[in-house]
Amino acid sequence: MPVVQIDCWRGSSVHERARTVKEVTEAVARGAGCPAEAVTVIIREVDQSYWGRGGELASTAI
Amino acid sequence: MPVVQIDCWRGSSVHERARTVKEVTEAVARGAGCPAEAVTVIIREVDQSYWGRGGELASTAI
Amino acid sequence: MPVVQIDCWRGSSVHERARTVKEVTEAVARGAGCPAEAVTVIIREVDQSYWGRGGELASTAI
Amino acid sequence: MPVVQIDCWRGSSVHERARTVKEVTEAVARGAGCPAEAVTVIIREVDQSYWGRGGELASTAI
Amino acid sequence: MPVVQIDCWRGSSVHERARTVKEVTEAVARGAGCPAEAVTVIIREVDQSYWGRGGELASTAI
Amino acid sequence: MPVVQIDCWRGSSVHERARTVKEVTEAVARGAGCPAEAVTVIIREVDQSYWGRGGELASTAI
Repeated sequence: MPVVQIDCWRGSSVHERARTVKEVTEAVARGAGCPAEAVTVIIREVDQSYWGRGGELASTAI
Repeated sequence: MPVVQIDCWRGSSVHERARTVKEVTEAVARGAGCPAEAVTVIIREVDQSYWGRGGELASTAI
Repeated sequence: MPVVQIDCWRGSSVHERARTVKEVTEAVARGAGCPAEAVTVIIREVDQSYWGRGGELASTAI
Repeated sequence: MPVVQIDCWRGSSVHERARTVKEVTEAVARGAGCPAEAVTVIIREVDQSYWGRGGELASTAI
Repeated sequence: MPVVQIDCWRGSSVHERARTVKEVTEAVARGAGCPAEAVTVIIREVDQSYWGRGGELASTAI
Repeated sequence: MPVVQIDCWRGSSVHERARTVKEVTEAVARGAGCPAEAVTVIIREVDQSYWGRGGELASTAI
């Protein structure tokens, strides 16, 4: 039943997300002692002009 | 003042979301003992290629 | 597969939460066109001294 | 290390978001007693037809 | 109507949270062009043994 | 800069959380192409009487 939410910058491929979901699910299922089937992972990609770090937008800082 | 966040797959119509917001608000307001006016509902629709379940992307599993 | 997160003030009973979960699940499952079994609801109760509204803590405003 | 998530309606400019990130970061860093560099701010703009208030969609209410 | 969620480490006083809520609300209201009354701020303090950074728990890293 | 939020049931040890943080961080850093130092993981353990699944509280269902 664990629910994992990942907020990160835009730009991943389907292949990369598939691998991330697989590995995160395995890690979380092991930690929670539950089957992988019970784990939900939601990936939200955020544009760097909506992401602030150190007081400025990531789109500016780069 | 309750804040409700709903993450789900893409594909709802405005009509469906209006009904969901109405029903969820009524349920939450009743549970919290507050007026419906105090309830905020945020719906985030997520593409199935950004949603993992059982270790794989929902776009793959289907 | 919808995931519902509810942030609200402290003070509900188990009975009240059970009813909220039941009603919210029914509304969301109907809206998403999925079985109730696929809906997760997470309730996070927040102390009013950690909740701001209109620029001040709810514990102060009351 | 504080993480700030802001959900709001669509329509801000990059300039407005930059100012919001700057001011929110300063406030949160001061409150947490940490450097601005440690603060992450994520802004998620939501269409009014996905935002419910008082039991109806904001796109309807306006 | 903006909703702000702040996750940070434990340890703030009510006075510090009141100031953070005030300042964050002002910044977000200005950015969104809405009255302060429309802004909700939820502060969630997290124990350092539940917070990971750079691959290890913050309680260990310190 | 990825931010990972994990909501799950209560009951983990510090040792288990440390391992989860380590493994999730590695997976997410690899997927995002960023150093592990840039990844934040927040674990929120939720009592089963605040967690709904299939329309009823997890504390009831078990």
